[in-house]
Amino acid sequence: MPEYDHPATESLTLLGVLRGLADPIRLEIVFHLGSVPEATCASLLGSRPRSSMSHHFQVLRESGLLRTRIQGVQHFNSLRRADLDFRFPGLMDAVLAARPHEASAGTL
Amino acid sequence: MPEYDHPATESLTLLGVLRGLADPIRLEIVFHLGSVPEATCASLLGSRPRSSMSHHFQVLRESGLLRTRIQGVQHFNSLRRADLDFRFPGLMDAVLAARPHEASAGTL
Repeated sequence: MPEYDHPATESLTLLGVLRGLADPIRLEIVFHLGSVPEATCASLLGSRPRSSMSHHFQVLRESGLLRTRIQGVQHFNSLRRADLDFRFPGLMDAVLAARPHEASAGTL
Repeated sequence: MPEYDHPATESLTLLGVLRGLADPIRLEIVFHLGSVPEATCASLLGSRPRSSMSHHFQVLRESGLLRTRIQGVQHFNSLRRADLDFRFPGLMDAVLAARPHEASAGTL
């Protein structure tokens, strides 16, 4: 069964995580995943084109923010909360707590 | 006396702050300013060209991370800790705590 590569927890960098978060669509995906155990790519796409979203999912995986597991034809995405909390204590708490303040222009 | 514009605390956005932080040079400036009350532009330049650094200082000001006050011919920069802590509790604590983990390639 194919699998995605995910960086090891100890190799995550703050700069990489910040870059992963510094985009409105990716931040919205992270906000959404902060409130659910996992979500399919389809449910996260909204009305956006799949092609542009693939890039965002890849950036989120490579920065260590997101884990994707494949089950059959479905891709399930989850936030790597435990890994992120271990590596950068308090960072995701602070980011996710800011969700109500941010105007959401998307469909998630 | 000329002054720089600084966005009001209530207008700061998480996305703007994350974008401000998501660059190795800007993150290094923020790390440095996290450990001192304020610093002159000259002391933050290191060996980098002034032209490219002006852009980074502008991004940091516009995102609400940095305040620049002008005194004579000197520009003094400080982190807007109180404003950032009020707007995004815990965010800067988490970012600055990660400093020892990040390899520094710069001169700051």
